Amino acid sequence: MADPIRFHFDLSSPYAYIASREIDALAAKHGREVVWRPMLLGAAFKAMGATPIAEVPLKGAYSIREFARSARFHGAPYRHPSPFPVSTVSAARAFLWLDGRDPAAAKRLAAALFEAYFVEGLNISSADVVVAVAARQGLDAAQMTAAMSDPAIKEALKTEVDAAIAAGVFGAPFFFVDGEPFWGADRLDQIDRWLARGGF
Amino acid sequence: MADPIRFHFDLSSPYAYIASREIDALAAKHGREVVWRPMLLGAAFKAMGATPIAEVPLKGAYSIREFARSARFHGAPYRHPSPFPVSTVSAARAFLWLDGRDPAAAKRLAAALFEAYFVEGLNISSADVVVAVAARQGLDAAQMTAAMSDPAIKEALKTEVDAAIAAGVFGAPFFFVDGEPFWGADRLDQIDRWLARGGF
Repeated sequence: MADPIRFHFDLSSPYAYIASREIDALAAKHGREVVWRPMLLGAAFKAMGATPIAEVPLKGAYSIREFARSARFHGAPYRHPSPFPVSTVSAARAFLWLDGRDPAAAKRLAAALFEAYFVEGLNISSADVVVAVAARQGLDAAQMTAAMSDPAIKEALKTEVDAAIAAGVFGAPFFFVDGEPFWGADRLDQIDRWLARGGF
Repeated sequence: MADPIRFHFDLSSPYAYIASREIDALAAKHGREVVWRPMLLGAAFKAMGATPIAEVPLKGAYSIREFARSARFHGAPYRHPSPFPVSTVSAARAFLWLDGRDPAAAKRLAAALFEAYFVEGLNISSADVVVAVAARQGLDAAQMTAAMSDPAIKEALKTEVDAAIAAGVFGAPFFFVDGEPFWGADRLDQIDRWLARGGF
């Protein structure tokens, strides 16, 4: 089987949320699997000297409107959350811990966290909220709480994020398809063609 | 007839070039016309405190690759120009002058300048190059040269660019469809649906 597609996401990114609902089905259409990898936009922005999009003059106001419109375009339920953006360090640690045990369950947790933030408006920067969302999935609260403060998990996330940035990941969603980088939910159509033709 | 679509472009923007080849046909499909308006990315970036994309760490290297890939995706011939980006002040003045006399001819000139830069690799920041490209269109070199240094045209471009930024234009291509703002060649699909349904 061909290599899996790499999908780098930050749980606070509206476009990563939109893409997360489609990428596995898109890949499956071409006989591919998807590996989900947590990244932290804050770390990438620091490496780029960039400002969070919602805070950029002119672009910020447009973006708030655009997030909701793109969500409608993709058929994704969306309520712009407040506060926005939020730190997803705890959530990313929870994902990474679970991913080491059960990658499919980790994807379900990430999907639930995206919905918690972008549909329910829960503040997923809180470790307690992450645990509560995980508990709905039948995951053990005590285990997850312990995992999020485990130095090994903290270190693993740092390594993961540093490696992603070193590989050129500067935004979310960010994909690699057989080494080819794609940034943005608006590149899903290019990924579709790339997979169909083996490049273009 | 419904209001025309506004298409704001900088002749040094690869994505504006890509969109320029499609927007009139897309609009015509929905019985709409397109008004082409020159903007200057440098002025918008200054208003945003932004850095030209190709100079941003991580994003810059990706973007150079992405320009060419998106051009292929859209079937647009493309050779990444050097230098990039370039000032398009002279070219925008030439466009604006001609637009006041013959908007259709001004669109043809803009299309020829996009091709001169992104296909032929000519440095369109030079007023002489602008005049040479215009001459191929049968436009009068002496008239155009005079127009580019006409204080009234200089002032008109400044007014045009300031008004665009005041209206929220921060990048190129930038479109308004019945007041709804769309940024990027990758929003042509949303514009298509917006025109078909009167919003979504």
